Formats: sequence, C-alpha cells, structure tokens
Amino acid sequence: MSGLFTFGETMGLVAADGIGPLGHAKSFSFGIGGAESNVAMGVARLGGEATWLGRVGPDATGELIASRTAAAGVRTLAVTDEAFTGLMVRHRRSGEFAQVDYHRAGSAGSRLSPADVPAHELRGASIVHVTGITPALSETARAAVFQSVETAKAAGVAVSLDVNFRAKLWSRFDAAPVLRDLVKRADIVFASPGEAALFVDTDDVPGNLAALGPAEVIVKDGGKGCTALIDGVRLSRAALPVTVVDPVGAGDAFVAGYLADRLAGASPEERLATAIATGAFAVTVPGDCEGAPTRAELAALQGDDVRR
Amino acid sequence: MSGLFTFGETMGLVAADGIGPLGHAKSFSFGIGGAESNVAMGVARLGGEATWLGRVGPDATGELIASRTAAAGVRTLAVTDEAFTGLMVRHRRSGEFAQVDYHRAGSAGSRLSPADVPAHELRGASIVHVTGITPALSETARAAVFQSVETAKAAGVAVSLDVNFRAKLWSRFDAAPVLRDLVKRADIVFASPGEAALFVDTDDVPGNLAALGPAEVIVKDGGKGCTALIDGVRLSRAALPVTVVDPVGAGDAFVAGYLADRLAGASPEERLATAIATGAFAVTVPGDCEGAPTRAELAALQGDDVRR
Amino acid sequence: MSGLFTFGETMGLVAADGIGPLGHAKSFSFGIGGAESNVAMGVARLGGEATWLGRVGPDATGELIASRTAAAGVRTLAVTDEAFTGLMVRHRRSGEFAQVDYHRAGSAGSRLSPADVPAHELRGASIVHVTGITPALSETARAAVFQSVETAKAAGVAVSLDVNFRAKLWSRFDAAPVLRDLVKRADIVFASPGEAALFVDTDDVPGNLAALGPAEVIVKDGGKGCTALIDGVRLSRAALPVTVVDPVGAGDAFVAGYLADRLAGASPEERLATAIATGAFAVTVPGDCEGAPTRAELAALQGDDVRR
Amino acid sequence: MSGLFTFGETMGLVAADGIGPLGHAKSFSFGIGGAESNVAMGVARLGGEATWLGRVGPDATGELIASRTAAAGVRTLAVTDEAFTGLMVRHRRSGEFAQVDYHRAGSAGSRLSPADVPAHELRGASIVHVTGITPALSETARAAVFQSVETAKAAGVAVSLDVNFRAKLWSRFDAAPVLRDLVKRADIVFASPGEAALFVDTDDVPGNLAALGPAEVIVKDGGKGCTALIDGVRLSRAALPVTVVDPVGAGDAFVAGYLADRLAGASPEERLATAIATGAFAVTVPGDCEGAPTRAELAALQGDDVRR
Amino acid sequence: MSGLFTFGETMGLVAADGIGPLGHAKSFSFGIGGAESNVAMGVARLGGEATWLGRVGPDATGELIASRTAAAGVRTLAVTDEAFTGLMVRHRRSGEFAQVDYHRAGSAGSRLSPADVPAHELRGASIVHVTGITPALSETARAAVFQSVETAKAAGVAVSLDVNFRAKLWSRFDAAPVLRDLVKRADIVFASPGEAALFVDTDDVPGNLAALGPAEVIVKDGGKGCTALIDGVRLSRAALPVTVVDPVGAGDAFVAGYLADRLAGASPEERLATAIATGAFAVTVPGDCEGAPTRAELAALQGDDVRR
Amino acid sequence: MSGLFTFGETMGLVAADGIGPLGHAKSFSFGIGGAESNVAMGVARLGGEATWLGRVGPDATGELIASRTAAAGVRTLAVTDEAFTGLMVRHRRSGEFAQVDYHRAGSAGSRLSPADVPAHELRGASIVHVTGITPALSETARAAVFQSVETAKAAGVAVSLDVNFRAKLWSRFDAAPVLRDLVKRADIVFASPGEAALFVDTDDVPGNLAALGPAEVIVKDGGKGCTALIDGVRLSRAALPVTVVDPVGAGDAFVAGYLADRLAGASPEERLATAIATGAFAVTVPGDCEGAPTRAELAALQGDDVRR
Repeated sequence: MSGLFTFGETMGLVAADGIGPLGHAKSFSFGIGGAESNVAMGVARLGGEATWLGRVGPDATGELIASRTAAAGVRTLAVTDEAFTGLMVRHRRSGEFAQVDYHRAGSAGSRLSPADVPAHELRGASIVHVTGITPALSETARAAVFQSVETAKAAGVAVSLDVNFRAKLWSRFDAAPVLRDLVKRADIVFASPGEAALFVDTDDVPGNLAALGPAEVIVKDGGKGCTALIDGVRLSRAALPVTVVDPVGAGDAFVAGYLADRLAGASPEERLATAIATGAFAVTVPGDCEGAPTRAELAALQGDDVRR
Repeated sequence: MSGLFTFGETMGLVAADGIGPLGHAKSFSFGIGGAESNVAMGVARLGGEATWLGRVGPDATGELIASRTAAAGVRTLAVTDEAFTGLMVRHRRSGEFAQVDYHRAGSAGSRLSPADVPAHELRGASIVHVTGITPALSETARAAVFQSVETAKAAGVAVSLDVNFRAKLWSRFDAAPVLRDLVKRADIVFASPGEAALFVDTDDVPGNLAALGPAEVIVKDGGKGCTALIDGVRLSRAALPVTVVDPVGAGDAFVAGYLADRLAGASPEERLATAIATGAFAVTVPGDCEGAPTRAELAALQGDDVRR
Repeated sequence: MSGLFTFGETMGLVAADGIGPLGHAKSFSFGIGGAESNVAMGVARLGGEATWLGRVGPDATGELIASRTAAAGVRTLAVTDEAFTGLMVRHRRSGEFAQVDYHRAGSAGSRLSPADVPAHELRGASIVHVTGITPALSETARAAVFQSVETAKAAGVAVSLDVNFRAKLWSRFDAAPVLRDLVKRADIVFASPGEAALFVDTDDVPGNLAALGPAEVIVKDGGKGCTALIDGVRLSRAALPVTVVDPVGAGDAFVAGYLADRLAGASPEERLATAIATGAFAVTVPGDCEGAPTRAELAALQGDDVRR
Repeated sequence: MSGLFTFGETMGLVAADGIGPLGHAKSFSFGIGGAESNVAMGVARLGGEATWLGRVGPDATGELIASRTAAAGVRTLAVTDEAFTGLMVRHRRSGEFAQVDYHRAGSAGSRLSPADVPAHELRGASIVHVTGITPALSETARAAVFQSVETAKAAGVAVSLDVNFRAKLWSRFDAAPVLRDLVKRADIVFASPGEAALFVDTDDVPGNLAALGPAEVIVKDGGKGCTALIDGVRLSRAALPVTVVDPVGAGDAFVAGYLADRLAGASPEERLATAIATGAFAVTVPGDCEGAPTRAELAALQGDDVRR
Repeated sequence: MSGLFTFGETMGLVAADGIGPLGHAKSFSFGIGGAESNVAMGVARLGGEATWLGRVGPDATGELIASRTAAAGVRTLAVTDEAFTGLMVRHRRSGEFAQVDYHRAGSAGSRLSPADVPAHELRGASIVHVTGITPALSETARAAVFQSVETAKAAGVAVSLDVNFRAKLWSRFDAAPVLRDLVKRADIVFASPGEAALFVDTDDVPGNLAALGPAEVIVKDGGKGCTALIDGVRLSRAALPVTVVDPVGAGDAFVAGYLADRLAGASPEERLATAIATGAFAVTVPGDCEGAPTRAELAALQGDDVRR
Repeated sequence: MSGLFTFGETMGLVAADGIGPLGHAKSFSFGIGGAESNVAMGVARLGGEATWLGRVGPDATGELIASRTAAAGVRTLAVTDEAFTGLMVRHRRSGEFAQVDYHRAGSAGSRLSPADVPAHELRGASIVHVTGITPALSETARAAVFQSVETAKAAGVAVSLDVNFRAKLWSRFDAAPVLRDLVKRADIVFASPGEAALFVDTDDVPGNLAALGPAEVIVKDGGKGCTALIDGVRLSRAALPVTVVDPVGAGDAFVAGYLADRLAGASPEERLATAIATGAFAVTVPGDCEGAPTRAELAALQGDDVRR
C-alpha cells in the first residue's frame, strides 16, 4: 500500500443558506466537515490515494460521512460508535461574518482511541497526516495521535501535521506544549503565522519552526500566499487573485494540494504552486470540501479558455 | 400568577424536506421540538397563559428555542448552560417511515436540575405539566421532576403528566417503575394504550390508571380517538376525519387542547372535543409545533366556510 | 372577428407554497387570477380565439397580467389605470382549508367603466362572457356589464354568464336581484346549486333557471359532475375520478371547456364532456389558470398511454 | 413607562428572490416593512423598550405585522381596521436597481387618526418618534402626527422626526411646508442632504436645520457617513467599510441605533458610533428589518474574531 | 470475481420538480437513469457485488453517471466516447401523468459495441444481466448484447434478461423477433404481461415463456404482484400495500431484489419476497434509482417500529 | 412587412443554480438559448418587430422554445422536426468559470435547410440577421444561411452578421474561409477582436473588416466598450461601469440594441449608445435572454431615480 493515511473527527455540517439570523433562514444544507477528511478528499480528487479513518455514530449523519468521503474517492474506514455523530451548525449572521456552533462534546468522533488505528495502515502509507484538532478532543484521541506518529516514524513513514489550533476546544496555554511536541515529531508542518506564534518567535516563522525538527515547513498566510523552508531551501509564492465566495476550507485544500503533489513526486516549487492553486479554487466554491478540484479543473482555473 | 407551567428539554430539529435518503435531500428546515414546549405553545396559541422553562446552550440553537417559544406567546424562562443545545435530525427515508436521530447526550437541556425550577413559579401556576421524557434524561432532571411535582401538590396546584415513554432513552424495565410513580402523584394523566401497558393491566386502561390515583385520565389512541375517566365519569370521543399531512406533534397538540380548555374552565366533554380538534389540526400541518391553531382557526377547521 | 370576448378584474395572486401559517411559509409564488381571464386562457389553450379586457395599474403586477394572458394565447386589451392593481394573498392554513385575502378595494380593475368596452369588440364576437363578480366591484363596473350585455344581445351575439356569487364582495340580498337580472338577459348560464338558490327554487335548478330565459343552463356540482338543460334537452355527466391536487380554478376551467367547444361547433353532449374533462384536468394541476390543457393534453388525461 | 413610542403604517412586503423581471422570479419572500416599525424593532433588538402602534387589516398580512414586530421584542398596539392591509411588491429588475410598487391607497394603515393614539402612551414615553411618511398618507394620519407631537411636547417628551420624503406619495411642493412645520416642532431630526434641501439652504445643512429649532440634527449621507449638530456641538463620523448586500433599511437602522443609545443615556459621540455601526450592519443583511442586530452582534461586526 | 455484471445506456435525467407544464416548473433536478445501472445500484445497495459498463460522453453528465453509480457501491466501467451523453427530460404535466422526452439519438451510450465488453468480465460474473432496451439502440449495441450472452452462456454464467420493450425506440414488429431470440437464450427472464404478449400466447404467460427455454420466468404485474415459474415450480406473491409516491423505477428495483437474493443463495420464495419488497420500497421514494434500500431499510419498511 | 428576420438553432438550456460541481447543485433552471433568438427577443423587448425561425423537436423543449420566444413578443416560426431539440447543460464549476456541454449533434435545430426559410419573409424584412454559428451546424444549415443572404441582398434588404466563432463546433481553419465569405456579403458586421483575427490583420480591425465590404462594422470588446466604422465614419464608445452578475448573453444584447435602434431610424451614435446600454443591462441580470430590457427599463439603468 501507499498514499496518504489520515484520521480524525468528521462531523455533520448544518449550514444556513443565505445571510441573516438563523431563525430567518429559508433553507439549510447538510454536508460534512473535518480537517483530516477534507485533506483526504482533496488528495483523492487530485488523483492521489487517500485513506481516512474515524469514529461515527449509529445515525444517518454517520452514514453520510461514510458515503460522502467514499464518493470523493477516499478509502474510508468508519468505526461505528454508540455515541452520536458530532454536528456543526453554521449561519452567516451578516455578509461580514459567520457563526459556527459545535454540538460535539461526547461525540463518537471524539472517542477515537489508539486501538482504532491499525499499525499496518500506518506502516503501509507514504504519508501519515494528523492535525492539532484531534489531541484537543479527548485523552484517548490525543493518545491515538501520538502513538500513530511514533508508529509511522518508526516505520520511516513521513509524518505531516497541520497545526490547526482551535480556540473553542482548548486554551492557548493547554494547546501550546502539545502542539509543539507534535511539531517536533513531524516531518512536514503546516501552520499560519498566528498558530506558529503559540510556540516559536515570530521573527522568522519558517526558520524557527524548522529549528524544532521538521524538514518541510510551510507557512500559510491566506490572501498573502505562503512561505516555506523545505529541505533547507526557502521558497515563497503569492496567492492567486480570485474573488472569494467562501473562505472556509481553503487551508485544508492548500494542504491537500501540497501533499497530493508530494505523493506524486513533484518538486517543492511545484507543490507550493499546486497548494496555492487548490486553495484558490476552494475559496471560489461554497462549502467545506464538496468542491475539491480534479487536476483538469485546476488547470481550467488558470487556463485561457476560462469564462465566467 | 396563573396558567400552565411546564419544563423540560427542547432541542433544535433539523428536518430534511421531501422523501428519500438523508444524503439526497435538497434542503432542510431548522425548527425546534420538545414535548413540553409544544404543549406550552399549543396552550398559548389557544389563548391560555403558558410558561416554559428549560436549559439551552450558548449557541444559535439555544437562541432559536427562546425566540420561537416567545413568538408563540409563551413566557419563556431559558436557563443558559455551557453545554451545547441538543439536536434532532429527521428524514423521511420513504413515504412510509421517518427516522429521527438524537444528538442529545450531555446536552444543556438534559442538565436540568431541581434548583432550576423556582418554587414560586410552581406554586403560582394553575397547572404544572411534566412528561415522562424528562426523568429519562439524567439524574438531576429526574430529581427536578419529582421535586417539582411535590412542590406543586403541596401548594394545591394540579399536576398534569403525559407519560410519553421513549424507548430510545431508557428500557421498559427502567422506565416502568418511574413512570408509575409519577402517575400516582399526578392529577391529570395522558397516555396511549401502549404506554399504559407498561404498568397497568390492559383490560380497562382508563379505570386501571385512575385506580392509581389521578382524578383525570385521558387515553389517546390516535386515529381511533380517545377514552377518558374524568372525576369518575367515563367519556369517549372519535377522531375527526382529516387527511394526515404529518402525524408528528399530534399527541402534544391533544394535550394542549385539553389543558387550555381546562384552564378556561370548560367541561370535561368540551375539553375532549377541543383536544380531538387540536390534535386533528396538528396532523394537517407539517412540523412539530409551528402550526398550532388559534381558537378562530380551530373553528375554521370544522366550519362550513371551509375550502381546501 | 369572432371567438370569445370577456372582461373583468384580474389580480396578482401571491400564494404561499406548502401548508401552514402565512408567517412560516418558506417561499411564495406570484401568479395572476381572475375568473374571466381564466376562462379566456382556458379557451385559448384549447385552440379557441379569446380576448380579455380589463384595467391594470402602472405597476409590475399590471405588466404581469398583460404578459401572462398574452403568453397563454389570449388577445389582451389592458387599459392602464392610475390606481394600483389588486392583489390576492393565499395560504393553506392546514391541509384542510385555504384562506384568501383580497387587497382590491379601490383597485385599477374595479374601476372598469362602460366606456372601456368597445362596442365593435362586443359586436364582432361569437360569445360575450361575463361573470357575477364584476357587478359587485363598483357602480361603473356594474354598468359596464349591463351595457355590454345589451350591446351584444342587440347584435345577436350570444351572452354567457357565470353566476359566481362572492360573499366577500356583497351580501346575498344585494346580489340576488342583480344576478337574477343578468340571468334573464343571458343565453348561456353557469351556476352551482348554491348560487342558483339565491334566486330560484331548488326543486329543479336547471329547469327553474331556464324558465328565466337562457337557452343553455349548465349546473356545475363539483365532484358530482354536472346537469344541464340545453335547447330544451336535459343532459347530465358524472365527474372524472381523478386525484385532486388543487381544486381552485376548476369552475373556470369547466366554463372554458364548454365555451371552447361551443365556439368549435360541438354538440351539447360534446361540450359537457369537454367541460368535465377540462375541469378534471384543472384539479390535477396546482394554480388557478397556469396549467390549462391543450386538446392534446386533454386527450392524454384519458388515454391509455397515461402514466403517473 | 418609558422607552420609544412610535406609530405609522406598516405593510406586507412581497419581495422577489433573485434578480430579473417580476415574471421570471422563481420564488418570493413575504415580510413586513414600515419606517416606524423598523425603528422600533431596531431599538428593541438593541435592548431598548419600544412600542409601535398602527392600523392593520383583518387579514393574514395584518396578523403577520403583529407577530413579526412582537417577535422582535416590540410592544405592538395593532388597531384592526376593516380596510385591507397595504402591500408592497419589490423586485430587483437588474443588479443595479430595484422597483417597489405600492398597493396602499385606502389601506388600513393609512386610515390612522388622532383618536388611535392614546395620550397616556405619548406622555409616558421617553421619546416619541414620527416620520414624514405618515402625514402624506391621509388627512387623518397627518392630524394624528401633529396632534401627537403637540401632546408629547406639552408633556416634555422628546420628539424625534425622520424627514423621510417619499416622492411617490406627494409632490415636493406639497411636502415641503408640512415637513418644515414638523422639523420646527421636533427635538431630534434625521434627514438626508437631499431631503433637507426641500426646505433649507444647502450651504450648511446641519446648521440650517438646527436654526429651525431642533436641538439635535443628524444628517445621514449613506456611504459618506454622517454629520450632526447636537446641543450646539458639531460632530461627524465616517461610514464603516462593509460590502453592501442590501441597502434597504439602512436609514431606519441608523435612526434606531441613535435612539437606542440616547434611551440608554449614551453621549452624542457614542450615539453616532452606534448609528453608523447599526446602519452598516443593516446593509450586510438582506431584508428591511428582519436582521437588526443585538448589542453582541454589533460588537462582532467590528471584533477581531470576525470571520466570513 | 463474482457478482452481477451488466451493461447498457445510462442517461442524464432532467426532472421538473412539482406538477404542471414544463415552462411553469420552478426548479429541476438532475439525476441519472438507465435500466441496467438501476439494477446494478439496487443490487449493490442490497449488499451484492455489481459491475456496470457503458459509454458516456466527455461532458459533466458523463462524469455524473460515473460518480453516482460508484457512490451507490457499483464497480463502474465507463467507456468515454466523443459523442454527447444522452439526456431525458421529464415533467409531470398533471397529477395523473408524466411526459418523458428522450434526447438520445446518436448519444455516446447508444454507440456501445461488442469490443467494449471484455470477455473476462462476462466469464467471471455469477450473473450477466441484459435488457431489451440495448438491442434497440443501434446495430453495434444489439451485437454487443447477443455476443455477450453467447460468451456468458459458453462460460456457464447465468444470463438474466428484463424484456423491457420500449415503444419509443422501435415498433412491436421490429422488437418481437429480437426479444424472442433473447428470451430463448436467457436463463432468467423478467417480463410484464403486456411485454410477454409480444411473442407468446397470453393463456399462460409464465408457462409459455418458460417453454421458450428459461429456467426462471418472473412475470411482474405492478400493483397486482407477480407470478413465476422457477425451476418448474409455480409461485406467486401479492404486492405490498404502500402509498405510491413515484412509480418510476419499481420494475428495476424488483429485478434488483430478485437478483441480489439469487446471488446471496436465497430460495425462489425468498427472492420473490425481496423483489416485491424492494419494488414496494422504490415506489415510496421519488426518483429512478437514487433511493434504493439497504437490507436494514428494507426490514424497516415492514417492521413494527415503522412510523410515518 | 418590416422589422428584423432571423433564423438559427435555439436549444433548451439546463443551468445549475449556484456554484460547484454539477452533482452537488441543489436545483436547476430550464430556459432557452440561441444567439439568433436572443437577438430577436432583445429587439422585440425594445419595441422593434422581430421574427425568428428555427427547427424544434416534437418534445416539451421544443414547445418551450416556441412559447418563450412568443412571450417576449417575437413572431415565432417554429418548424417541427422528428429529431430531438438540442440541449445545453451549464454549471459554474467555481466562481471563476462556467462549463457548457452541448447535447446537440443531430438535433432538430441543426437540420435547418434552405427550403425552411421562405423567400417572402426574407424579402419583406428590413434587416435579415444571421450568425456564424449556423453554417457550422450542418451542410443544409450552411446552405440555408448563404441562400438567405443572397435572397435578401437581391431584394435590397440589409444583411446583418454576428461572426460568433464557436471553437466547439469547428476548427479555426474550417471556419475562417466560411466566415470571411459571409463578412463579404454582409452590410452590417459584428465581431470581437479575436474573431476578426481569424481572417483579417489586427492592426486596424474595423478598417480591415470594412475593407471586405460591409458598410457598418462594429467591433465588440466586452468591458472595454466598442469601436465602429459606420458609413465611413469611425466611432467608439466606452462600456458602462456596472457590476457583472452574468456575462453570458451580453454580446447578443449588444447586437439587439444596435439593430433595434437601426430599425427605429436612430443615428450611428445613438445605435452604439443603445448597444452599450443594452449589453450593460444584460450583464446585470442572470440568464441568457430572459431579462432583456424595455426602453423604459433601459432608461432606468442610467436614470437618477435608480435605487439598488
């Protein structure tokens, strides 16, 4: 086996259509969202092999997570749990900001434990990808992350980490040492400048992150593009000038672009170019992960046969 | 003060529009649902005073519960809790059956406790209404029910109970003794034949329930109408012949009709007539509680100026 | 020229989609409705020539009336008035009944006057069709009806009347003598048994109506079918067994079917058969007049290639 | 009692969803709109006490007005009238402009008269708010405005006026002297530069308006922000840089922000800041008044935890 | 390998939501439909292995066919062709009948040829399923059917045929000999009484079909249930009493139920029971194939925990 | 007779609402589209006489084309063909580009032939308008264009050509000589700079096109406006600064504006002003041709009573 292996919590996402108070929305959409499954779906849509594992509840939301990830081409290993599947409720209170409520405490997804993650899956992958969200979910979930990282490293499998600090799940003080420990163990690290500031100085974010250990550090800075320090070489790339339809999911798409290209053997420069383009594509489509592009669609975004 | 006082868990209700698998639904509605708040809203729409109390989370769903109950004319006492508001997800898998998933374990609403329910509210009411759902939610919620019932009884306030056995929350063996204890303490009891069979013989359901103590026993039997034993008098009333649009909420509407009429000083015969009509109205409107009728609308249902 | 000529008030129709209180409807449709324009559209869809004349306001609703009638193949003579176009607001409060509110007092359509109706249009028609609604709108509208009827009769043009008593516009006492006067002047009269009871005995409705003068009397009785007394011959025809989707507009469709066939030279038996079929078709389609059938579609309703 | 008291005509608002000709719209929304009730709802959402009074018809639109204003927390005094409730029909003909048709002549709301407005309500308020729309509706409505203003002034209650000139209701020549008379009697005056130009020189709009009498003059200038002359002090504040979703209702939201802060005892500078922020919020949400913000939501608009 | 192997044309299906003329529909759905892929999806949802092969065009509809069949668990072998993917346009003209237009002449799907169907796929299957639609599409498609049947038979693989006569594709005279030839070669034959009448006497449909060769003959008779002659044993089973939401797709669901059970080694009686239940389920869900049930859902249809 | 006469293929247009992959769209619209009918509808909405002729299939899409063009005020001559009506499927894959698939090979519309176009229609028109799309559809369609142009020219009728090169229909090499031949025969030519580059040098596009023969050359350059060489006079006009909602159909609207003004006897300067304004209007409304403006609406776009 080969390809990307990732695991984490994926939830149902109930999103109000349109703008305004929740109680005034005329209709809602029901999708799924989870940083790790977003990355897996993005990689699969770009032609890479991707496996996602997670706990889901014995409910229709759990089935939806299994079918939507599979439909995107992901090999899905859904462990059924007796607890309910977590839900997010999102509405855009005004054109300027969205509110996301998490109905996830005690959810199936947060009950992930080390025994859920088969060692042979970890050892057989080319890249094992984790995020800083999972260790915040529960003690067992945190153990699953650290144990998986150790297993992968011991097998010589590259470990990828998206720092993904979530203030709604834990405090900066609780998070910083845990995330720093993960960065030290990872081979590939993605972070925003703000996330990096949790545990390194901000004078040279890529350099200071790399000093902790990872050979590949990529700093995502949204509309400003990205900077990176990959195998000792500093690189940067500007964002593409697109009209933002929905910024949610851009970070995961960026990561998917980079990792898909890395799986395909592309150079660091190519990886960043694909990461930037995939992230740009994501913001031109509504929804978290539903509109991840294929290689052909990515080409169309920049091609001269483009028409609105 | 006077009127109806009730408390319990109200949840957000995410309902798929149309028929089919959850993942194929084109749009969803977001409403609220809870047996006790349904009754309160039904009573208020019929012109009665009604107060509902419950715990809600610090999220948009919690705000929705507060605003929807208030908009129906209910005096709402929402206690904000740090836990998330519970959610239900409902879809009609085929024209023949619906599936409801509960995402409620550990929810704000289930953390209700005796201290939440002010004694002066209980003592100032004409009727205190509880259901058999609340004792199944948590130890503290069960204590809140029993303590409230005692406080009301001690103050000479009538206690109303809708047995409402929910198999998804507890087993028949766990539920039976608790519900039987509640029936013994209540003055007014609503039950279906199946629910009554949990703890009395089925040869004479109204009689056997009344033998436990309550002066007013009303047995709801859906499309067959109802039978009752009120202050020693046996009564029965057939269902109205309407086309069922959505059967959910009919039981709560029936209870609201009975209690609103009781608050208004109507005779037992009138109460049953209103209960039957309100229940019939409810099944001709989609949704749990959103379409509860006013007195004028109830009259229109049977009036000769009716037109489809 | 030839064909049907009719005139009256047509209004915008704002209709709530779905069932429930107006304030809970998720979306609304905006159509048009008017008994006379419904008949004109029905005749035109069945291949007959039809002209409709009416006053409309200087607003988008007025333009909509002009374009929708024209799109159905009606020759439309819209007289623009400075007053607003009348509006109807309809919602189905429950599955069992609908409420229609009229926002029409002082509307453009009610300001119709005798001078609006050109004598040459009346004289050039094969049938002039009026309803009992127009005389209830205003003094000038009533005058327009009576003067037009006289002009048509003097020119030997057949006068058709749909009695159409509307209790929201005038009392039974005000309406009865006016409608009776119109029946006396008409050649073709359509009425329900209830409408006929306003001014004739109910022992023999067709006979008693015919005794007032009209050579063709057709009594529409909804789901029971129709009875008629045409040129001295008594006829009757049962309704077709279809599933009712929306009963509104069935009466106008029935009239359109009869008159279209009469224009086409069909026998009384054929006219009733077409009237019954067109009325049946109308109740299987939502909306007032939007779904009037062509001859081919009418055939399909009864054909053996029918599939749901 | 205390808080804001206001009265005027509120109408049903039928609005086409999307952009294009009325006849091509796929769906419509049904809301309510009225300058005075918009202000009352805005004040109530910001935590102030607000009462709105107006005439409504015996129709579902009248009920909707009562329930929507009440749901926003407004104390609503709806006087039922036998005339129909006025309606507005709005569609966005292109992305660049909207058309609003008024179906209001002879409506219930325009039949407001001096006797409808209880003197004790006027005397018990902290602020009585009127607009320049009401005097254009009918003779009795105009009398109601002037008599109410006199009653309030005599009781020492502050009178607030939004000039709100509406060219569809009366000519500039008819309006100017009436509006000028109202400005002279008011303590607080809101106007746009164009409205002020009806009756004062444009060299110094705030100064010239203040010279007529009012102690607080606020000139709203849309995207340019506002200037004011309050208790002899000149102030100005720039607009917030938000993306406009729907400009309708921004003026009423601005007024609500100012008056809510005035009721709460805020300084002139704070009032303008809140007015600007509330107006900015309003343009980022579709609809007239449905999306008025709470204090918490207003804070979120400018907070650094903002995310689209 | 094992399981079901089938091939044929699958098209995009543009379906008007609601009832009425095409031009009045407010919205449309875009799905897929094809007798063979419907059967494959039905078998896969019931837990069987199923492979579908067909030609699709280089367009978004072609991609949709590939992704929707795959999402249902079907192994999909989509051969891309330069011609466009065929489309169906369906609208329900009235509640009583639907119209389907085929935009398929020259489509990719009709260009199927013998070389497209790999012999190893045919030989490795447990059942090869074909329909009487494919031979009507083109000369090459007809050759593909006959050659595949021969290859399967030579390898001892069971051949299943759904007669599926389509009058829009060819005449009864052209169809009869071809379909009869296929029946002779098949092991399992599904037909309606009307279809069978094309080439056998109607005195004993199952017997006369079996006399042509097939060991398993199943006569589907819609609401009347089915009769069968399987391995010399006559069987019959009544339809389930469900409320029909959408009859389209019931026949394919019936076939899927039978074949899934046959793959699973069930008895003839069990196969018919499952076929009847799957067909009943299909008519309670809108759409062609989107709502095919799992085993669990099939159980729920008949279970006593059923609630509407 | 007089006015515009045009002919070509019009197709059904199935368009996904919203942005994202085809399979994720919640709903679709069904409209019509065709360069020539778009121009005819645009001319008719601006008050000009316009006739459109084309072949349509015996399906609901064919009926829709006939009714939609007629509803826009176009005299429609629909020739019914046994082949299906062509369809387009459009979805916006991201906010940055749309994909249009053509399901048109062998369609009714492409089977247009010289005999379909009556000589008296051509001779009686003021302008005969053709596009470079029709000659690419089939041999007979190409012949129809050339023969019609000759007939018109011989009768002294002005010939208008919109070059409209479509790369999906033929190669640049195949198209260039045919389009050049048409330019030579035309009196009025519309082209984009890119289209002109197919067969003239780009140093002076208007001059080089005019050198081929046409007295009126108009070069449309989208957001940059247009340049022209009309009767020897060079003119240019900038685009209007509007927010683009949907760029599709702007070119056809531009042509309609120019030709409607030419029919009305306006000067070249006026024609360009109207063309620019009509094109600007088109991009502010979604859809191909559904939102073409009237003269009054065009005035509103630029008027000072404009409000969003």
